Amino acid sequence: MTVYLVGAGPGDPDLISLRGAHLLGHADVVLHDRLARPVLTLARAGAEVVDVGKEPGAAAVTQEEINRRLVEYGTRHGCVVRLKAGDPFVFGRGAEEALALQAAGVDFEVVPGISSVLAAPAASGVALTCRGLAGSFTVLSGHGDPDRWAPDYVDALVALRGTIVVMMGAAFIGRIASRLIDAGLCAETAVVAVRAATTESEEVRRTTLGSIDKALLGPPSIFVIGDAAGLDLRSVARRCERGELASSLL
Amino acid sequence: MTVYLVGAGPGDPDLISLRGAHLLGHADVVLHDRLARPVLTLARAGAEVVDVGKEPGAAAVTQEEINRRLVEYGTRHGCVVRLKAGDPFVFGRGAEEALALQAAGVDFEVVPGISSVLAAPAASGVALTCRGLAGSFTVLSGHGDPDRWAPDYVDALVALRGTIVVMMGAAFIGRIASRLIDAGLCAETAVVAVRAATTESEEVRRTTLGSIDKALLGPPSIFVIGDAAGLDLRSVARRCERGELASSLL
Repeated sequence: MTVYLVGAGPGDPDLISLRGAHLLGHADVVLHDRLARPVLTLARAGAEVVDVGKEPGAAAVTQEEINRRLVEYGTRHGCVVRLKAGDPFVFGRGAEEALALQAAGVDFEVVPGISSVLAAPAASGVALTCRGLAGSFTVLSGHGDPDRWAPDYVDALVALRGTIVVMMGAAFIGRIASRLIDAGLCAETAVVAVRAATTESEEVRRTTLGSIDKALLGPPSIFVIGDAAGLDLRSVARRCERGELASSLL
Repeated sequence: MTVYLVGAGPGDPDLISLRGAHLLGHADVVLHDRLARPVLTLARAGAEVVDVGKEPGAAAVTQEEINRRLVEYGTRHGCVVRLKAGDPFVFGRGAEEALALQAAGVDFEVVPGISSVLAAPAASGVALTCRGLAGSFTVLSGHGDPDRWAPDYVDALVALRGTIVVMMGAAFIGRIASRLIDAGLCAETAVVAVRAATTESEEVRRTTLGSIDKALLGPPSIFVIGDAAGLDLRSVARRCERGELASSLL
């Protein structure tokens, strides 16, 4: 009886790991985030599939309830997959789920996934680091009100002179940009906005920090800010259809 | 004729993506980093395999030479896989390789991979972000001399109050720790050091910033610094043997 906290990757089923795909194919139960839904094509045909995701604006299953269900399923079934969008330990409250399982004495294993932090740059043709352009990158959540950020926090983001990656930033990116500009980041700094990277709904917009209002995308979106975001390394090759390999495993 | 810049993931062949595994299984040529060597078990039996990696201390193939070979192979063969350790766009000079291919008019595609930035925390049972402990994370290279870091850069790392991930830090981690402590980061701050995450040589040590000299590991190692590194979310489940799934695909 084991609960597997599996990173589903960014959305394209072909970007889950071999181990994640194998576990999905053997799962008795799959509890999944909304954004991990496309990857359910890999779940075992007879598996019980439970949606514990949040629709924007809709009543959500609380984290406490998710933790409770994980423990409950984990004590009743042989192979429970908790399928999390991206990577379990990057802004997914995976640590809280692991702690709940640990506290209840339920065996678990964490299988990392390709976070959209990595997938969105690859899909949009920008790098997170590049010699001469960015020697570090900082990943933060844009979910909370940036007007509450402490001044020294914003100053620090600018002082690092690296790439800044804002996840879940759709609602507040305009104010985040204003705060970065006020702290000294050039309004001409390159920004790439990527919505739903690697899915059929993927959208990419290239803009600058000062013009970010013109590049607004709905959730789920990610913003890559900095000189490395000015690169244009788009792949010119035709990709195979998304999920093509995943389908062939079924 | 396409060159695929493929992220091999952290080392365990089961952690490459389905798409990466598929491309390796169809490659005419594979040019690989040293750290991606375990994943070569997935390469097509007849593929030409070229090691372009650096042994520590040994003469390396220069980046210019790698770029030149990628262009040359990319114009002669149908499917060339450039297998890069971790993710192609996180400190791997993948951007430079993509730019070289772009300049030469060679078709390419970037396939992201599970960077050790994500894999080392999962393997060692710490999270990069966790409510109440870390709201952001910054990833930097520890390859250069930290005594040359500008004071405002070190101050900024501390001011963010997030998780700090130092890659390629084996040589300089002691001095990096000293600079962080001098800039105000508490000497009791938790550190997890992970060498060769997800491979048979994996080693994990838990320590504090002030005692880091006692946790030195050889390369390739990664250091996760901050309150979230004080978590102990180790998985208690028996994992399947590394590479077991990958082997079953051969």
